[in-house]
Formats: sequence, structure tokens, C-alpha cells
Amino acid sequence: MKVGFVGLGDMGLAMAENLRRAGHDVTVYNRTRARAAALSGVRVARTPGEAAAGADAVISMLADDSAVEQVILAPGGVAESLGAGAIHAGMSTVSHELTRRLAAEHAARRQQYVAAPVFGRPDAARSAKLWIVAGGPGAAIERCRPLFDAMGQGTEVVGDDPVRAAVIKIAGNFLLAAAIEALGEAFALARKHGIAPAQLLEIVNGRLLRSPVYENYGKLIAEERFDPPGFRLRHGLKDAKLALQAGEDVAAPLPIASLARDRYLAAMAQGWGDLDWAALARVSALAAGLEGPIANPVASR
Amino acid sequence: MKVGFVGLGDMGLAMAENLRRAGHDVTVYNRTRARAAALSGVRVARTPGEAAAGADAVISMLADDSAVEQVILAPGGVAESLGAGAIHAGMSTVSHELTRRLAAEHAARRQQYVAAPVFGRPDAARSAKLWIVAGGPGAAIERCRPLFDAMGQGTEVVGDDPVRAAVIKIAGNFLLAAAIEALGEAFALARKHGIAPAQLLEIVNGRLLRSPVYENYGKLIAEERFDPPGFRLRHGLKDAKLALQAGEDVAAPLPIASLARDRYLAAMAQGWGDLDWAALARVSALAAGLEGPIANPVASR
Amino acid sequence: MKVGFVGLGDMGLAMAENLRRAGHDVTVYNRTRARAAALSGVRVARTPGEAAAGADAVISMLADDSAVEQVILAPGGVAESLGAGAIHAGMSTVSHELTRRLAAEHAARRQQYVAAPVFGRPDAARSAKLWIVAGGPGAAIERCRPLFDAMGQGTEVVGDDPVRAAVIKIAGNFLLAAAIEALGEAFALARKHGIAPAQLLEIVNGRLLRSPVYENYGKLIAEERFDPPGFRLRHGLKDAKLALQAGEDVAAPLPIASLARDRYLAAMAQGWGDLDWAALARVSALAAGLEGPIANPVASR
Amino acid sequence: MKVGFVGLGDMGLAMAENLRRAGHDVTVYNRTRARAAALSGVRVARTPGEAAAGADAVISMLADDSAVEQVILAPGGVAESLGAGAIHAGMSTVSHELTRRLAAEHAARRQQYVAAPVFGRPDAARSAKLWIVAGGPGAAIERCRPLFDAMGQGTEVVGDDPVRAAVIKIAGNFLLAAAIEALGEAFALARKHGIAPAQLLEIVNGRLLRSPVYENYGKLIAEERFDPPGFRLRHGLKDAKLALQAGEDVAAPLPIASLARDRYLAAMAQGWGDLDWAALARVSALAAGLEGPIANPVASR
Repeated sequence: MKVGFVGLGDMGLAMAENLRRAGHDVTVYNRTRARAAALSGVRVARTPGEAAAGADAVISMLADDSAVEQVILAPGGVAESLGAGAIHAGMSTVSHELTRRLAAEHAARRQQYVAAPVFGRPDAARSAKLWIVAGGPGAAIERCRPLFDAMGQGTEVVGDDPVRAAVIKIAGNFLLAAAIEALGEAFALARKHGIAPAQLLEIVNGRLLRSPVYENYGKLIAEERFDPPGFRLRHGLKDAKLALQAGEDVAAPLPIASLARDRYLAAMAQGWGDLDWAALARVSALAAGLEGPIANPVASR
Repeated sequence: MKVGFVGLGDMGLAMAENLRRAGHDVTVYNRTRARAAALSGVRVARTPGEAAAGADAVISMLADDSAVEQVILAPGGVAESLGAGAIHAGMSTVSHELTRRLAAEHAARRQQYVAAPVFGRPDAARSAKLWIVAGGPGAAIERCRPLFDAMGQGTEVVGDDPVRAAVIKIAGNFLLAAAIEALGEAFALARKHGIAPAQLLEIVNGRLLRSPVYENYGKLIAEERFDPPGFRLRHGLKDAKLALQAGEDVAAPLPIASLARDRYLAAMAQGWGDLDWAALARVSALAAGLEGPIANPVASR
Repeated sequence: MKVGFVGLGDMGLAMAENLRRAGHDVTVYNRTRARAAALSGVRVARTPGEAAAGADAVISMLADDSAVEQVILAPGGVAESLGAGAIHAGMSTVSHELTRRLAAEHAARRQQYVAAPVFGRPDAARSAKLWIVAGGPGAAIERCRPLFDAMGQGTEVVGDDPVRAAVIKIAGNFLLAAAIEALGEAFALARKHGIAPAQLLEIVNGRLLRSPVYENYGKLIAEERFDPPGFRLRHGLKDAKLALQAGEDVAAPLPIASLARDRYLAAMAQGWGDLDWAALARVSALAAGLEGPIANPVASR
Repeated sequence: MKVGFVGLGDMGLAMAENLRRAGHDVTVYNRTRARAAALSGVRVARTPGEAAAGADAVISMLADDSAVEQVILAPGGVAESLGAGAIHAGMSTVSHELTRRLAAEHAARRQQYVAAPVFGRPDAARSAKLWIVAGGPGAAIERCRPLFDAMGQGTEVVGDDPVRAAVIKIAGNFLLAAAIEALGEAFALARKHGIAPAQLLEIVNGRLLRSPVYENYGKLIAEERFDPPGFRLRHGLKDAKLALQAGEDVAAPLPIASLARDRYLAAMAQGWGDLDWAALARVSALAAGLEGPIANPVASR
């Protein structure tokens, strides 16, 4: 298929590469054009619109709502150039409101919108092991399937409404953040009782929870491997806010998301925003007196 | 081995039965004596002390700290009658302070104390699939191993200090409560967006977390199967308090445990204390306006 | 002075009336034009721009950021028609970002922006007893002083930067919300121990806190007088969000604001959004089992 | 009157001195006997029982439940020696359960128990400006009135049941802790926006809340005067726990008390337990990155 791909972050780069490997005809766009140099065998567009022109489908993998608005909806963006009947598959994690708006804007131009956010970190993107949650018109999802198959290990179709896919992705990231926060608290408790986090993890996850997610994040935290980040803490904050926003719109309080947001902010205040989001656990350690001096505290007023 | 067994709740009854089946010579004690009628092939003691007299080991599986103090340490209790060199294996979930005190009291009588709390619900107890976390003198743990093997599928030895086993069990239950609370919040969010909890669970746990714990509790919550309880909500509250207490003693704040405690209390106030602790999720539903009228609200003062 | 006044809610209507009484030449604009009928002796504009044209100063008293953007910054709005050198005094409670943006947009048009949010409920607006917190160019504030004096009992000047006034107002409302939430929790505790909220209030505020704010809100809560609202709960939610946003931008976690936001959402989910924001206390009563059946619970999905 | 006084902390010393000044015949007991040297004109007992023997009334002003149990109920304590018909007025802040138990134990000995906890810090104790909340048999309270008048500026009688006085005191301290926590958060927000806490306080309390409590604690926090403590942070933690316990017994969740407890623990972990409880505000500053290096962080594991 003729595919436009916008957004070449750690995730996007790997996904675009997998599309090319699968034999698709890929044109990429990235704001920082140099990122595209890492890819061979693709065309490089100078504008998002150029990546969209003539494409069967455009895939976006961008940082946040604001980047999506800029690259898709702003003048010169994807929506302007995408042909009638062509598809935009939004694979970023964005708000449910923006998802609703994208569906409306594309429909108004007789284009189709599929929300297809992914679960998986950059290593899963590289090995085409992402899980894709797809919401949108059934026929459009089917046309995207070869693309999804090239990037992921499976696609869960959740119905006609792209907003469902967005909310499921947001709820999923919320559950991950809750698990990371809980591990951080449990490890701080254990450490202060002289128990190594690795031992607690081995027993509680090894015997009880038996979750690869607890395993992976538990190890990152136990071994304090937060750099380089697989997923940045500041993006974790963004996702906690997406959850809170999704909850607010339907009047559903999410106290663990509120707690996580406060902890992310405390982490940001320590300068940890570009560590892996597993560094959320360091806030529990800080509160328990287990963290050493802060390198560069903000001057007192 | 000659074994005393005190505490015949849902868990204890199944565990005692498995000990008997494995060929051990079992004497049981339960405050409500009629419970013992469910067991054949065991002797029934009239006092805890009688169950302990002459035993190689006494196993306790009681509701909480206060029951353990009553049955083990009070006059006429296990400690008074247990022989020198004999072992008390405490398999209940109790506080780290009581664990420390039990170790000291037994040591003062030249008895041995092994803390051996278990992970698993009554069905795991019946099928001898419990996981046992054992802390205490190595030789004592080894002597208990045939007993543990008859009741569980594995024993994790965590060192000489019984308090380590107590804290690991407490931290484990804290992680379970955090998972249940997080599921409750995520499901309320999903429901108000028109997404069935079962679908969210299938994707997020099926593809991502892949944890039997999320699977089991997720299903209980999605299907609102809270009665009969596998583990009562009021005992979940007790365990949240054990975590908070363990945190307090070492100055480790546990905000998710604080949140869970508040939610358990809200559940108690609705009269849900004897439902399964997965009913914690109903508090999220209540706060989101998804729960119907409360049957018997306390009259407004 | 020749004054434009935009926004005739409960607060704005009273403030505009006081300006007129003080002899100012007032032109009002309100989206729902009929509201202006309550005022005599004022001109009624058909657009915000018409209210601004030729005015020495325009005062805005609108519901939220979005209303301010619409009425001030959108085409046909105040900014377009306000003369060079004229002043916009924004007296609504809005975000610190919008405040920053208003200052920039007005400066770009050689207009002056004064942020002048107020403390006080509609009764204080009617009796010209508001407290005004003014931030902006000193000379502009001085020119507004006769207007402020006609509406309030005092004006606190907090410097050149309008954002300071916005943040102080946001922090002030945060402290009020915290006080209301704390009262709600304390009253629920007292009621369940058989102690009347009024008695607790009399002792704790009468002897200790001695604050008219605790007195007023304490009475509203104790007597369950939430309707008609002085300040709507849904606006309290808005202000909690302004505080969270102001905290987020500088990485300052505000856990009580997070808690209040969750409680406001719970109140919204019960259908209490248009009660007085003191009804936040009903969420504590609900959680404690003291509230009766919810009239129309959302059907369980 | 012939009065026994047990507990000569900062509060008790000042209170006993005021009793003596008012002409009462005072016998004091303190665990650390040297404290009594600061008082002239009183008798010094060697045991609590000795202070109680022959007294018309014994007043206790002790640190916590455990100290009260030790000094009043243990062998050799006050209860053993107090005469039939004599009164024990417990002025410490203790749990509602211990209050209930004291009432029962004294009643069993035909003694009378009045719970009479006080609001006020050591300076108020010295100047006889305490507020006393008295619960117990009316006649016993009347007999105590000359004593209360010598120590305080007023006594609020709250009925026959001493537990009511205990709960009101606990709820009052909860409201104070909530106010301190809220101030700490608001100040951190203000500081990071470049606004001095003193300015925020002047406006928000000076114009709006108008509470001497906000004024005093606001100044302590703004000026970082936490040492010497008027009321130690570790006692604030104790009181948060009393509130949580009082809430738990009646199934009333108190999320601000839970939050405060977590923040107190974070403060304890930084080594701030013996600062004034207003130092709770430093936890908000720490989380916002405003606090400098921790002097002696706990070694990493």
C-alpha cells in the first residue's frame, strides 16, 4: 500500500521501518527532518500534507494532542491533502476529545478515521510485537490490517467508534501507572524493612501476580534503570492527565490517577521528567527518606 | 508428624484436611467447636493448649492479631503447652509487631517460631495450591517442610527473621488491593464511556498485564460476584491497616494504602463488609453514580 | 467614567448596578440579553465589541476561560473595539495562562490589561463588599480605582504582573475548597459519633478558628442549605482545575486540590453540580453512609 | 481544692502553675521528676498513685494513650489510689476508645471521669487562655470548674458522655491539620509562581478567612519558624491517627486525615518529627522541589 507516516520518534521510526520491510511504499514526515535519515528505502516529505497526498492511508505516531493538531489539522497538514476515501490511522495516545474531533473533521472531508493506539514500548515496536486497539469503520480497519500486521502481533477491534479505542488505551495506561506507583510504594516499604525489592518482586510477581508488566517495571525500579527512557516520565504525566480528563467528562473520579499525577509532578520538580516513567517509584523513595540529596534544588523562592 | 492446628475458617479447614490426607496426626482446635465436625480422622481439642500439648508443630490460621493473641499467648493458649523445641508455624496474616512478639515469646520458652503466611484463596487452600512465605530458623522451616508441602505448591524461604515473611505477605496483599482498586476505577471509567469492563479486561489484561490475579478479580468485579466472599472486604481493610502500620513504623508513606483504607471504610458504611474484597470496586462505581440506591442508609442526623 | 461591562451573572449584575449607582456611564453586554432588563439606567450593547467601543474601561465578569476567550478575544469581541490606551479589567476567576495571554493580546493592541479577580459571593457583590486583588500596570490600576471602590470594600494591589493576581485568587479559592472539604469530613465524623455539626462548629470555629468563612460554610453545610447556590459546585470544580493547572505549570503537586477535584466529580455524578459548592460536604456524608438513596442513579451498564 | 496533677510537659507545667497560683493545693507527678523543680509551692509525688491519694480531683496532661494507660490504669497508677467520689479530669488528647475505657474503669471504682481536652498551645497554657471541652457527669464538671477557670478562658460543656469531648477535640485537631496542610500546598504553589507566602497570607487570611489560626500557622510557615516546637510534628501524626481511628470505628472515611498522615510520615522520614507540626508544610515544599538537600538521608537500602 501507499502509506504516509508522520512522527518519527522512537516508536514511529521502528514502526515505519517495519512497514517498509513488509513491502509498503512509505513516505515519512517528521518535524525534525534529520530523524528520517535513519530510514532507507522511504521517501521523505517536507510537509505533513506532502506525506498524505496520494496515500491510501496515513499513519500518525506523535507525542501528544497538540502535535496531532499541528500535523493533522493545521493548514498544510494531513487532513488538507488526504484524498477522499483515504484513511488516517491515528496510533498515538491522545485524548478522547481530540479523537472525537478527528473523526468529525475527517468525515467532513469524506476521509476515514481509525483510532489505533498501541500497547508496547520501543523494543516491542522494533520487533513488531505491538498490540493494536482499533476503533473506527469496519471496512477502514480491514484495509489497514496489512499495515497493522506489519507493526504488531495482534489487533483488537473494538467497534465503530474511534473514541472507544482511545478510552481503552487511556484506561490501559492508567492501569500501568497504577501498577508502577504500587510497586514504588511496596518497594519503599520493603527497603525500609531491610528487604530487597528484587526479593519481594520474585515472590509477589513470580508466584502471585505473574505479570510480565510487573516483572519488567519491577526490575527497572529494583535496578534503578531509568535512563535511557523507554517511555518518558513527562509522557506518563500526559497520560495521567488524559485519564483524568476522560474521567471528568463522564463524572468518574479516578483517585489513583490523581495520586499518580501529583507524584509525576513531584518527580518533575526533582528534574526527573526525562527518565523512564518507572522513575515514578523514586517519589515513594524520596518521601520515605531513601533518596539522597537532590542535585540542584530550586532556590528557595 | 504430630500436628496441632488452630483456626478452622474457610482457609484453615481446607489446610487441616490436606494435612490429614498427607498422613499427619492432626489435632484441631476452633473456638466454635462445631466447625471441626466437617473433618474426619482428626482429634478435636477443647482448648488451644490441648491441641499444642505433645505436638511436633502447631499451625495457626486465625483471623487477625487479636485472635492470635487470644489463642496463642493468652493463658491456656498454645504457647503455654507447646513443648520445648517444638514449633509454632503462624500462617495467618498478622502485623509485623505481633510477629516480632511471637518470635520473642516462643524463644523465651525455648520453642521455635516460623512465620509462614500464605498467598491464595480458599479454592487454592482446598487444592493444596497455596504459596507459602516462610521466615524463621532454617532448621525449623525444614522440619515444617512436609507440612507446607501438604498444603501448598511451593515455599519461599526468606531468611531467619520471621518479620521478613510478615512484611512480604503484607506488601503482597497491598499490591493485590492496589490492583483491585485500580481495576475498580478503570471499570467505572469504561462503563461511563459505554465500554463493558469485560472488554477492557480482555484487552488490557489479556494482551498486556497477563496476570491471573487481574483476570480473577477483574472477572469477579465485571460480573459483580461478591457473594459468597473468598476473602471478606472487612479483612481487606484489616490488611490495608497492617500495611499502613508496617509503613508507619519505618516512616514509609503508602498513599495507595491510605486511599484503599478510605475506600474500604466507604464500603463498610454501605454495609458491604462481608462481601468479597473485590467489592472495593463498588466504591468507584458509587462515586461515579453507577450504583443504585443504598438499601438502608443510616438515618441522617 | 465610561465603562463597558460584560457578563451579567449573579455577580456581574450586582457589580454593574453598583457602578451605575456610583454615577458611571455604563454599557452592558450579556450573551442572554434579557438579563440586562434587570438593570435600569444603563445602555445595552448587542455585541461585546459595542460595549467596548469608546469606553475608558471594560470590566469582564464571565463564567470561565472559554467565555472570556469568546467575549474578549474572538472576532467581534472586546479586544477588537477597545480603544488604544483603554483598559480591560478582568474580574473573573480565570487561568493564569489565559491571564498571561490577555495581557499579551491587549498589549499588542496598545490596550492595558488589569487582572482584578474578586473574593466574595453574590451578597457581597450586592452590598459592594467584594475584596479585589489587582495586578497590572500601576497607572491603569489607579485609573480603575473609582470603579473598584464602587464594587468592593478594598483593593489589594499585587504588582505589575496580572498573573500574580490570578494565582493569588486561584490559591485563595483553593484554600476555601480545602476548608469546605475539611468541614465536610469533620461533620461526617461528628454525625456518626452522634455529635451535631452545629455544636462542633460552634466550638471549633467559635473558639479556635474564628473565621467567618468557616462560620458561613459551616452553617450552610450543617443546615444543608445548598439551594439556591451562592457559587455553584460546578464552578468549584472549575476552580479546583485552575489550581491544579497552576500547580502543574510550575511542578507543584497540590494533593488537596486533587482530592477536591475527585470529590467534586463524585458530586457531579450524583447530580449536585448546580447546588452551592458547599455541597461538596455531601460527598463525605455519602461515603460515610449518611446520605439517603440517590434519586436517579445512572442505569448500570 | 486538693488537686493531683500528672504530666509536666510544656503544657502541663504551665497548667499546674496556674492551678497553684489560683490557690489550689497541688501535688504533681512527672515520670522525669526533675521537671517538677520548675514549680514552687507544690508537693512532688514519687508515684502517680501518691499524687492521687486524698485528692478531690486529679488532672492528667500526658503525651498519648500509652502514657495515660501507664500513669492512670497500670498498677500503682492514679485509678488505684483515687478515692471514691473523687474525679479524674483527663485533659490530654487521647483516643475515643481510651476515653470510653477510662470512664468505665473509674466508674467501676466509684470514681468519676471527666474528659476535658484543651485547645491551645503552650503560650495559651501559660496565660491561662486555653479553651476546654468538657464531657462527663454534670456535677463532676461543675466541681472541676474552679480548676478549669484557673487554666482556661472558657469551658464548653458537651454533655454527659466523655467520648463526645474526645471526638470534638480530635475533630478540631483534624481541622487544624487540614488548614496547615492546605497552607503548605498553597504556599508552595505561590512560591513557585514568585509570590511570597506572606503576601498570599495577608490577602487570603487578612481579607477572607480572617482566622487567628491561619494567621499564626501561616506566619510560622512563611517564616520557617519550626524550632522550638509549640506542638511537635510527631504528636500531630499521633492526632491524625486518632482521627483516622475515630473515623474507622464508625465507618467514616477521612481522606484529608489520610493525606496528612502520609505527609507526617514523609516529614518523619526527613527527620522533622521534633519540629513544630507546622513543618508539615515543608513536605509540600519538598515535593515541589523547593527544599534543599536532606541533611542525612537514610542510606539507600
